[in-house]
Amino acid sequence: MLFFTQCFGAVLDLIHLRFQHYKAKRVFSAAGQLVCVVNPTHSLKYAPTRCAAVQTSAEQGILSPCHHHEAVHDPQLVPCTCPLFSCPWEGHLEVVVSHLRQTHRINILQGAEIVFLATDMHLPAPTDWIIMHSCLGHQFLLVLRKQEKYEGHPQFFATMMLIGTPTQADNFTYRLELNRNQRRLKWEATPRSVLECVDSVISDGDCLVLNTSLAQLFSDNGSLAIGIAITTSKAHNSEAEI
Amino acid sequence: MLFFTQCFGAVLDLIHLRFQHYKAKRVFSAAGQLVCVVNPTHSLKYAPTRCAAVQTSAEQGILSPCHHHEAVHDPQLVPCTCPLFSCPWEGHLEVVVSHLRQTHRINILQGAEIVFLATDMHLPAPTDWIIMHSCLGHQFLLVLRKQEKYEGHPQFFATMMLIGTPTQADNFTYRLELNRNQRRLKWEATPRSVLECVDSVISDGDCLVLNTSLAQLFSDNGSLAIGIAITTSKAHNSEAEI
Repeated sequence: MLFFTQCFGAVLDLIHLRFQHYKAKRVFSAAGQLVCVVNPTHSLKYAPTRCAAVQTSAEQGILSPCHHHEAVHDPQLVPCTCPLFSCPWEGHLEVVVSHLRQTHRINILQGAEIVFLATDMHLPAPTDWIIMHSCLGHQFLLVLRKQEKYEGHPQFFATMMLIGTPTQADNFTYRLELNRNQRRLKWEATPRSVLECVDSVISDGDCLVLNTSLAQLFSDNGSLAIGIAITTSKAHNSEAEI
Repeated sequence: MLFFTQCFGAVLDLIHLRFQHYKAKRVFSAAGQLVCVVNPTHSLKYAPTRCAAVQTSAEQGILSPCHHHEAVHDPQLVPCTCPLFSCPWEGHLEVVVSHLRQTHRINILQGAEIVFLATDMHLPAPTDWIIMHSCLGHQFLLVLRKQEKYEGHPQFFATMMLIGTPTQADNFTYRLELNRNQRRLKWEATPRSVLECVDSVISDGDCLVLNTSLAQLFSDNGSLAIGIAITTSKAHNSEAEI
């Protein structure tokens, strides 16, 4: 009997997700857009000193990745960029994607424009929603984080990082778009490199920031649909000049 | 000597404003856009109960304006909608614009697209920047407010209100756009009616919200340029469906 109840629950969940998927697709109805349902993961760590090495070296004009170990090894090695876990792994930029997929099971999606559907927005902070996005020959990491910058007032922060160098990142522009309830919010910026730390991007507030009340206005049944598009910077600049 | 020093200071100020005006025009370079330099005004009052009457009647489905006096007079009378002053004036909707212009010296600008250039963003909260915008046969009130919702953390809130009824307001969509430093933020929504209270729109967070760090990224020399465009809702809906 318990087995049947559980099966029924699972089917209901699937129907609910399918319904959300359909609604997100209707909101962002451009042809060819892929909707990806992203479940939350409670952050297992928030180490404030994690990026100290990167910030210091960036100030000195040197780009070396942040290291979890005290001794600095090969400067071409990148630590695990997944903000969810305090992971001791480090490797070359070229293998970061396969590490994130295999070890942290982060999904990767193809397509110029996708819809990121984050579920369970009501969960308490800190919580992260993460996917990788493969586009224009590169891989990007989208991080949506619920965090309490001011105690008792959780906010949502969304940013996109290129799994590549800062010089490569400068060639792209990413756009995040929320569209619901006759309201629309768009954020466009140059992605940061994963060599810079997602924690510092969020603490600087240089990303899409949503108060809880705005997040609720854009949410539907506890899920937030974010339309994502990536273009090359040339297109962005010429558009800005029009 | 003092006279000459003051004159020189005034000329420098004018050159500075002219330069800001030019830069704002370059950022929002669509033809026919008017740049309006808006100086801040320290809010003289923030009466939290000011809108209690409106909120209660809105919950009951009745739209009556908020009154400063205890006795409710003619339901067609609107209190002074200028959020800057605790002004005892009340009058019909048709004369609100002339009251705001004459008594509170709020500028009115014509044009489908204008640039609102708010100066002295560093001034402490609470501070307001206000203009009226005449467009598509109606007058709109743009309010940018710096306020500390969380103590010690000032935020900027921008919204547009129609000087008309909520039914009339439903026919329009307003867009606020920030564009600087390879970042772009756009907010689109239906304007609220001035019969609803600007204080409650801001406390609900149903408007463009900027943290101080983001406001600094979009500011230039302490001034924030906001591109404003108003369209009829039909255009907005068809655009959303594309």
